[in-house]
Amino acid sequence: MQTIYQFQTAQNIVAGPNSLQLLGEKLNLLGVEVASALVITQPPMVDLGFVEQIVSQLEANGISVDTNTNILPEPTLENIEQVFEATAGQNYDVLIGIGGGSVLDTTKILSVLKTNDSSVEQLLGTDLVANPGVPTILIPTTSGTGAEVTPNAIVTLPDQELKVGIVSKYLLPTLVFLDPVLTLKLPKPITAATGMDAFTHSLESFISTKANPISDMFALESIRLISSSIVEAYQNGESIEAREKMLVGSMYGGMALTSAGTAAVHALAYPLGGKYKIPHGVANSMLLPHVMKYNMDAITDRLALVAEPMGISVQGLSNSQLAEKVVGKIIEWTNVLEIPQDLKNYGVKEEELPEISVSASQVTRLLNNNPKKLSLADIEAIYRQLL
Amino acid sequence: MQTIYQFQTAQNIVAGPNSLQLLGEKLNLLGVEVASALVITQPPMVDLGFVEQIVSQLEANGISVDTNTNILPEPTLENIEQVFEATAGQNYDVLIGIGGGSVLDTTKILSVLKTNDSSVEQLLGTDLVANPGVPTILIPTTSGTGAEVTPNAIVTLPDQELKVGIVSKYLLPTLVFLDPVLTLKLPKPITAATGMDAFTHSLESFISTKANPISDMFALESIRLISSSIVEAYQNGESIEAREKMLVGSMYGGMALTSAGTAAVHALAYPLGGKYKIPHGVANSMLLPHVMKYNMDAITDRLALVAEPMGISVQGLSNSQLAEKVVGKIIEWTNVLEIPQDLKNYGVKEEELPEISVSASQVTRLLNNNPKKLSLADIEAIYRQLL
Repeated sequence: MQTIYQFQTAQNIVAGPNSLQLLGEKLNLLGVEVASALVITQPPMVDLGFVEQIVSQLEANGISVDTNTNILPEPTLENIEQVFEATAGQNYDVLIGIGGGSVLDTTKILSVLKTNDSSVEQLLGTDLVANPGVPTILIPTTSGTGAEVTPNAIVTLPDQELKVGIVSKYLLPTLVFLDPVLTLKLPKPITAATGMDAFTHSLESFISTKANPISDMFALESIRLISSSIVEAYQNGESIEAREKMLVGSMYGGMALTSAGTAAVHALAYPLGGKYKIPHGVANSMLLPHVMKYNMDAITDRLALVAEPMGISVQGLSNSQLAEKVVGKIIEWTNVLEIPQDLKNYGVKEEELPEISVSASQVTRLLNNNPKKLSLADIEAIYRQLL
Repeated sequence: MQTIYQFQTAQNIVAGPNSLQLLGEKLNLLGVEVASALVITQPPMVDLGFVEQIVSQLEANGISVDTNTNILPEPTLENIEQVFEATAGQNYDVLIGIGGGSVLDTTKILSVLKTNDSSVEQLLGTDLVANPGVPTILIPTTSGTGAEVTPNAIVTLPDQELKVGIVSKYLLPTLVFLDPVLTLKLPKPITAATGMDAFTHSLESFISTKANPISDMFALESIRLISSSIVEAYQNGESIEAREKMLVGSMYGGMALTSAGTAAVHALAYPLGGKYKIPHGVANSMLLPHVMKYNMDAITDRLALVAEPMGISVQGLSNSQLAEKVVGKIIEWTNVLEIPQDLKNYGVKEEELPEISVSASQVTRLLNNNPKKLSLADIEAIYRQLL
């Protein structure tokens, strides 16, 4: 538990079913005159009518709007630079990202590329962004990354088979819309993987060596919301109540990790994304139960505190029984939500495990937050459980 | 319960015992070059060495520092204008307020006076501030108002015997330090009144007609923290654990009220502050049990939800029994913390109650948030219980 701790988040959050319909009237929260906007997204958001919902409100306010739908999943440095080049001649008063974590992260990076004389490569790392970016509005359409409230953006470097982060307070958005209606059509496998990803953010923040009173509040409330809705959201995707709990819970997960950081699950997920293109949410979900089993003896008392928010009946049980039940519940979800559990399906070969393990062991920024140290052999043993 | 809701807060929060000692190294969070700073405070903060702790860190960073210690409790429009006039020729890169709610509110107002061509009077109301202010650092030394994280500032208008608010997103600070060490010497009556004020913010936010999932989380966690520490902080002021819980709890109270608003307690408190100079925390604490008794039948189920976070054993009790226990606990605190319960001691005369009641009835911005309507006679009956 950290004794001095820090918290930062998005400047304004507007939430609730159909809250996106207030986009036009909430533009004053940006604190700047808006004459032109760029909407950054992917084709399904156009097909679902979400982009039109945004564009029509902007145009009704006399704002000229461009739309770029070329954002790729788990974007590479090159993808991001292409989007930047495509809009290089244009000055926009606001950038609006609507989509999952990949779209939101690209929007955040584009915002600071436009105001800093730096390449994406030069910004990789912590606090290397010199100037504030163009104001951003972020609108998540998955309940997963919490990217709408974090100062982080993840970039894939295919040459190095790595995923790396840009961390800067200037990546935090000016305005967030949290509208669960946008998540009603989310396909089942994405609901499952992104939902478990959000749960991972909160659980890892709660057991992080940097956990603190602020991150704990967000983590526990996130765990409570997600635990009470993830199976319902998966089995009955049209449930607005379940979808809203998932969306607010995933935002709190982003708030928790901003303050406390994530740990070994994320460190081991990065090489799976960088080398094998396994989506971030899937990689985290696959690893979560295995890393928690590994951690268990070091975090029995902390895991026990998670039982009640997870809806586990705690009456008369010892901390180690409760910790067992917490991990048991995660494994149960892994089955019910049909989370993939075989790396072979993603092209991972057994003989490659030593190399992946070395990559994971180098993500020290996150491994340092883990409550139990992991040797190279420990890391490899965890990966091996997924073959 | 509001279905579409909004949240905004301070951009950066640094918290924990001795966190103020990190002021120098955290200046980068301001996102601007700082060459000059104005510290805004009151003489006790100088005597306690808090101002020197700030000034020495600023000077070590090559920053020139002025200090203004002329902030009055419950500041009037005239006081604020005097402070503005005294610094009118100076441009500062940051304004640093250290003190209770009066100091923090004055700092927030001064920040926007310096960048807007408006008088204080022209800013009174909601969203009337046109431009962002000078960046501010707010450092609370009471666990009470939550002013460090609200977009509100309260001004006393003695001519009209009124307290009125400036509400603007531009009043939110860039950086907050939440250092419980600064509250260890807080005198008992101030610990009591400001602590109950913070509790009032959270309880009124929780029963507000604008309560929502975000404000509820902050309100309940605030209630949990304050309930577990207010008596200890009062009886054993040097307890850093109790002081930290109170300080974090009071910040969450500010976050809750920013999203959900306060209600009848605050509406009835304003005329007591405006006309009789009763400190804000005292006025709220006096009124709290009486307004809650009045509200009880309309909010039984909501009050019942507050019992568990207040540490009340809930086993086997009906909601109306739990609601009774919640109000009973508030009355118990009122006694233990020796909260004043007689308006006569502040010069209020029985024959003045009709006039004060009319004033209170005009605070519709807050009365509209109350879950039960109050007639003039209802308001007067509540005041009468305090004579």
